[in-house]
Amino acid sequence: MSQPETNLAIVIPAGGGGTRLWPRSRQSTPKQFLDIVSHRTMLQETADRVEALVPPSRLFVITNARHVDPVREQLPEVPIQNIVGEPVGRDSAPAIGLMAALLERVAGPDTVMVVLPADHVILNGDLFRTTLLAAADAARAGYLVTVGITPKGPDTGFGYIQSGASTGIEGTGGVPILSVKQFKEKPKKEIAEQYLAVGGYYWNAGMYIATVSHLRDLFKTYLPQMEAGFAKIVDGLIAGNTGVMTDVFHTLDKISFDYAIAEKAEKVAVVPADIGWNDVGSWARLAEVLSHGKHESENIVVGDHIGYDTHGALIYSPGRLIATIGLDDIVIIDTPDATLICPKSRSEDVKHIVEALKARGDHHLL
Amino acid sequence: MSQPETNLAIVIPAGGGGTRLWPRSRQSTPKQFLDIVSHRTMLQETADRVEALVPPSRLFVITNARHVDPVREQLPEVPIQNIVGEPVGRDSAPAIGLMAALLERVAGPDTVMVVLPADHVILNGDLFRTTLLAAADAARAGYLVTVGITPKGPDTGFGYIQSGASTGIEGTGGVPILSVKQFKEKPKKEIAEQYLAVGGYYWNAGMYIATVSHLRDLFKTYLPQMEAGFAKIVDGLIAGNTGVMTDVFHTLDKISFDYAIAEKAEKVAVVPADIGWNDVGSWARLAEVLSHGKHESENIVVGDHIGYDTHGALIYSPGRLIATIGLDDIVIIDTPDATLICPKSRSEDVKHIVEALKARGDHHLL
Repeated sequence: MSQPETNLAIVIPAGGGGTRLWPRSRQSTPKQFLDIVSHRTMLQETADRVEALVPPSRLFVITNARHVDPVREQLPEVPIQNIVGEPVGRDSAPAIGLMAALLERVAGPDTVMVVLPADHVILNGDLFRTTLLAAADAARAGYLVTVGITPKGPDTGFGYIQSGASTGIEGTGGVPILSVKQFKEKPKKEIAEQYLAVGGYYWNAGMYIATVSHLRDLFKTYLPQMEAGFAKIVDGLIAGNTGVMTDVFHTLDKISFDYAIAEKAEKVAVVPADIGWNDVGSWARLAEVLSHGKHESENIVVGDHIGYDTHGALIYSPGRLIATIGLDDIVIIDTPDATLICPKSRSEDVKHIVEALKARGDHHLL
Repeated sequence: MSQPETNLAIVIPAGGGGTRLWPRSRQSTPKQFLDIVSHRTMLQETADRVEALVPPSRLFVITNARHVDPVREQLPEVPIQNIVGEPVGRDSAPAIGLMAALLERVAGPDTVMVVLPADHVILNGDLFRTTLLAAADAARAGYLVTVGITPKGPDTGFGYIQSGASTGIEGTGGVPILSVKQFKEKPKKEIAEQYLAVGGYYWNAGMYIATVSHLRDLFKTYLPQMEAGFAKIVDGLIAGNTGVMTDVFHTLDKISFDYAIAEKAEKVAVVPADIGWNDVGSWARLAEVLSHGKHESENIVVGDHIGYDTHGALIYSPGRLIATIGLDDIVIIDTPDATLICPKSRSEDVKHIVEALKARGDHHLL
């Protein structure tokens, strides 16, 4: 892994709106731009994680236009022409398709494009990189490859990938590469429990690996109208003209890559990976990450806290003292203009608070 | 009640340290100086409550020397020579004894002195005033009189007064005036339940009514050494010299009027009173006061709150939004430098937070 694989290119879609970690994440600073897990932001950690695989010139980010400046600030080593701003969010298919079209022109059709979400945690970086190299092997053999996270429980918050027989490909590091039988939507609890009992099911973490030429073909097949717009945008981007992008992007359908392409494509492979992955999709999931290696009754505290008979709390309060009495598994997130307090088990209901703020028209708090 | 009873003088001891409503109450601004129940401070409400009984010239306050200025600001109608600053807190016996000695000189020995704590809530002001007038009748007949609050439950947080036979005194408004059999310390739960079952037990609210000459005699009998110091202090106060007070006060014993005098005196009477009293001795008790007339599941909010599946909360947050999910009977008190979060049922444990702050040496938060 000391020799960068110059045939790879990493594409990081960083367009998430980030309401699930309100009040820390806001529309102006979604989760991926926050130093919520370590002293580095989640975007920086995502880039750090592939530093050993590709040079910065092979790192690309596509984000909302208004977040281009934060990306440049957080990833100063990435060439500014590698950072693409979407005038409007159109979900993952337009983002991935456009980046494939751009990479075809600037890096060539044989490039293996690796799509990595900007806001996930991966504790085992070495195994993750080996997994990506194995996935790249399968991509070169003509597969659209995804990474399948070994499930830790019957979670109903993720889509699942049902694996089939081995592809027969010999992956880097001996990592198995399986064919994909089917993508499954977020299941009910009983179904998720069945998946775990039967085995061969993995969490879909939204990572995709394929050659640029393969991706281009998939878009031509499944989203031909959308694909037609990409060439014009890429011409504009290379000429330094973002006006074309603004005009064309608004006309594109809002649709996910999973739904429009991955679920329909033939020759899809999955690389199972037990890499300490976490999507940090709620305060409870962040607590899982931060309490790694600690006893579950320990409090996780950023800032100043005095707890009397308080156990298993997640407390973020850099600005003032939080004093708690007689509380178990509570989440307390204190920011200058808003404080959230809820049990860990209810942290996914933050969406209702965000909805209430929208209904009130309190845009400064969103 | 339209004719002020010029024979009365009201003395308000306002020396409480106020840690039980931390973080709103601090050493610099104890509970009595806060507008915690209404737009008036508790001290102001205490003074307002007796406005119909005495003119401001008959209202006296004894407080910690560093709180004399806040008292002057909050009660501008009270003559400044009526506001006495203690150089150091010595509990209630020295405060009451000194004020009796002062009143003997400035108002005469026949004055009926009414001692009213500065930080209690009384919802039924009319009945309260009638109660005090009846108590004054008994005081003139030679009794040391206390007000006995009709208990609302087997509370273990108060001392109890066991009543005996009627004194036979015809009190104002037909209010019964009973002899006191015994003062009882804060009881255990089972004992408190017995008191309620048996009847004739009242909560001790720390209100005392007696003539000045009677009080002087009681101090001469039970605290003769302390009594000897009062004359010198009063000479100094009347001459505008607080230096004597500073010298003498430090030498006085720290002891409560209940323990040193009331429990030992003969001819003690109690006037039972169902006046909507609350000592606001914890956040839970404040919630009781503020939720008066509301359904118990309603949230009591000062400031901005969005609650999702939140019931029976007490929330104070004038400075920022508090968002809560899935919490019942929670107390959230937000101030610029500290926030308290605890279930109502645990609000008396705030003392442990205050202890922890003392142990940390965090004096700016106390």
